[in-house]
Amino acid sequence: MSEVIFRGGTILTVGADHRVLAGDVATRDGLIVHVGGPYTPTGRDYDVLDCSGCVVMPGLVQSHVHLCQTLARGRADDLELLDWLRTIVWPYEAALDPAALGAGARLACAELLLGGTTAVLDMATVRHTDAVFEAAAVSGLRATIGKAMMDEPDPAIPAGLRETTQASLDEADRLHKKWHGALGGRLRAAYAPRFVLSCTDDLLREVGRLARERGVVVHTHASENRDELALVRRRFGKDNIAVLRDFGLTGRHVCIAHCIHLSDDEKAILAATGTHVLHCPSSNLKLASGICDVPALLDAGVSVSIGADGAPCNNNLDGFLELRLAALLHKPRHGSRALPAPQAVRLATLGGAAALGLADRIGSLEIGKRGDVIAVDVGGPHVAPTASPWSAIAYAARASDVRHVAVDGAVVVRDRTLLTLDVGKVVSEARAAADRIFAKL
Amino acid sequence: MSEVIFRGGTILTVGADHRVLAGDVATRDGLIVHVGGPYTPTGRDYDVLDCSGCVVMPGLVQSHVHLCQTLARGRADDLELLDWLRTIVWPYEAALDPAALGAGARLACAELLLGGTTAVLDMATVRHTDAVFEAAAVSGLRATIGKAMMDEPDPAIPAGLRETTQASLDEADRLHKKWHGALGGRLRAAYAPRFVLSCTDDLLREVGRLARERGVVVHTHASENRDELALVRRRFGKDNIAVLRDFGLTGRHVCIAHCIHLSDDEKAILAATGTHVLHCPSSNLKLASGICDVPALLDAGVSVSIGADGAPCNNNLDGFLELRLAALLHKPRHGSRALPAPQAVRLATLGGAAALGLADRIGSLEIGKRGDVIAVDVGGPHVAPTASPWSAIAYAARASDVRHVAVDGAVVVRDRTLLTLDVGKVVSEARAAADRIFAKL
Repeated sequence: MSEVIFRGGTILTVGADHRVLAGDVATRDGLIVHVGGPYTPTGRDYDVLDCSGCVVMPGLVQSHVHLCQTLARGRADDLELLDWLRTIVWPYEAALDPAALGAGARLACAELLLGGTTAVLDMATVRHTDAVFEAAAVSGLRATIGKAMMDEPDPAIPAGLRETTQASLDEADRLHKKWHGALGGRLRAAYAPRFVLSCTDDLLREVGRLARERGVVVHTHASENRDELALVRRRFGKDNIAVLRDFGLTGRHVCIAHCIHLSDDEKAILAATGTHVLHCPSSNLKLASGICDVPALLDAGVSVSIGADGAPCNNNLDGFLELRLAALLHKPRHGSRALPAPQAVRLATLGGAAALGLADRIGSLEIGKRGDVIAVDVGGPHVAPTASPWSAIAYAARASDVRHVAVDGAVVVRDRTLLTLDVGKVVSEARAAADRIFAKL
Repeated sequence: MSEVIFRGGTILTVGADHRVLAGDVATRDGLIVHVGGPYTPTGRDYDVLDCSGCVVMPGLVQSHVHLCQTLARGRADDLELLDWLRTIVWPYEAALDPAALGAGARLACAELLLGGTTAVLDMATVRHTDAVFEAAAVSGLRATIGKAMMDEPDPAIPAGLRETTQASLDEADRLHKKWHGALGGRLRAAYAPRFVLSCTDDLLREVGRLARERGVVVHTHASENRDELALVRRRFGKDNIAVLRDFGLTGRHVCIAHCIHLSDDEKAILAATGTHVLHCPSSNLKLASGICDVPALLDAGVSVSIGADGAPCNNNLDGFLELRLAALLHKPRHGSRALPAPQAVRLATLGGAAALGLADRIGSLEIGKRGDVIAVDVGGPHVAPTASPWSAIAYAARASDVRHVAVDGAVVVRDRTLLTLDVGKVVSEARAAADRIFAKL
């Protein structure tokens, strides 16, 4: 019986009533058993983490990342989406072998965990997705991962990424059998049709059917870029969300990144079906895509969560940066009270958990939930004096303030040091792999 | 003869040709004497800073900050400008005594220097401005500071901030005599009429005359908020920039924060007169003020630089956050090529130097300039692999990556430790002062 005690912090439960407590948070055998007030361990096998001067809160949940793209950080600046995909990101993904993919994914996992992100919804590339699962497995990150599905015979897609409909479905099936529910449920498989333009009608329809039948998360992109919208309308005669709905790809198990350019009808479909919108503010700015109208979506009853997207369009995987930007970005349009700090923190934690279909297991500090807990030092000169822990976390704290991180009650970051991977080695392997891959391109 | 050697980094000179060099940057007696390639010290009194894995570059220059407001961090969220001033910030400023003001300003200086900001243009509050100069003096920060001038008999201004026209001018005069050019020119005094609504016509006219006569920087705010604009039009029958011009408050010595809502005529005045715009992207989002159209201003030939504004409207004083946000924020409107990384880095360094009237002394690494130099570790898992040092600095690096900082060739941060102030003591004094001041309110 193993216990972990986050001792003596200010606790943001992110529960229904947004309580702020003082004291300890404890996990036993991976589950949260105590929140607030002093905790006395029940056995001898326990670990105490000093959280004095810290906010203790649920780990950040990023609902849209691409761990496979990390080696391309800084290689694809100053482009819009379709050029960015066609000239850099797809050729890069096509050039990846399992070793390079693993090196990039381990780098991503190191950045995510050190920065307080404990769970992600990830879209991998077309091939070698086992390497991404293996990186998440060894790092300690909670991850729901889908291989990118791209069976549309589009000449803009490099040969290395093309696949047949059946091969795409078979590979997703193989990954599902191998990884879904692995490591006590820490790893799960998703279906990830990249976006409707990269998929055939047959694939979209079949994914819609299988995902519903198997209760598996679907992860895709839509309505990110105006050129994309025009191509969707040309091919389907309707807008993205209607296309997805008609293939059975809406619902509480469906997660759609971006959703910047939506009609009122599309918003209504998202709300009515419980489909999740994955908001990626830095990426949407950097690719000049636009600003997703998050307050309007929330008002319409749409479930919204936050993600950093990939390193070549951000250029970080930093949950705190995205949380802060999400909290700031919508105020000019909707007023200074839009997305106040507690709501923004909620999107970045429980919102992500809901997108992953895990709101009953992670995303808040409640007894019986999994022990995905972080301690954030709010004593730095850029955060103090801390008038409100909500404000400190939403507007002032940085990823580098994260002191301790546990996933499933296992301590993976202690005193700002990652315990599961040698970060120096991860960085040097990633550099070597990036040099090797880009030398080929 | 004292030498400081930043050894073995990747050097961004931010000079005219945007050169990237390898090797050392060296200062002697406060001046840069060497940029690129190996440096051999000429005497025995030298200090070597290991910059392996770092980008070595000019310190960030923030052209709009309020060191006096730091104790109100997290106390004034979710408000728009005029409410923010009237309900929180002005009463807070009015309650400050020299001890509290000094505690807040030292906290700000610690944050700024640890985060790689080496020079600021600061607007203090109405009284006790010596405490801000003293904080900058002891911390090692290069600072141009002006007392806030607010002689308009506006009942919304608390009694503690009201002053007569003559008292305002006299105090600015006293501060100028005492501090302008102090510490080898590291400290300078500015005129800081807060905004036209807080000043009488007489004050504005007299500041216009005196600043020009004495060659002193003028630091003010304008066109931040639509309610402000309406009040300006009601009082003066014209827009902010025209009001300032007609009082003699435009020119290469004049620095205007925000400039979000400008007519084409106002843009033309700014360009023709060489008046500087101080862009504060986080603050402008958080106060729901809007987005200053920086690419349009740059295209029109206006000088633009970057600042964090104050802790209660940001909530950091983090030059890297502002640089990154400035680089991202304008792309949806102007395309993904707007403000590419080298241009954004330039605004955050040489742009700020130009606003301060110090472009011949700081803002780039060139022989003969003052030794304001920073080393930024780009080996972290959130920055690596570093395809381009420009991209790494603009899009991926954080304030917490700053390893070494020198101002005027004096090392003030070494291996991420501030040498001039005890940060723990600064934070606890700031907390105590904040508690004391807000207990009064």
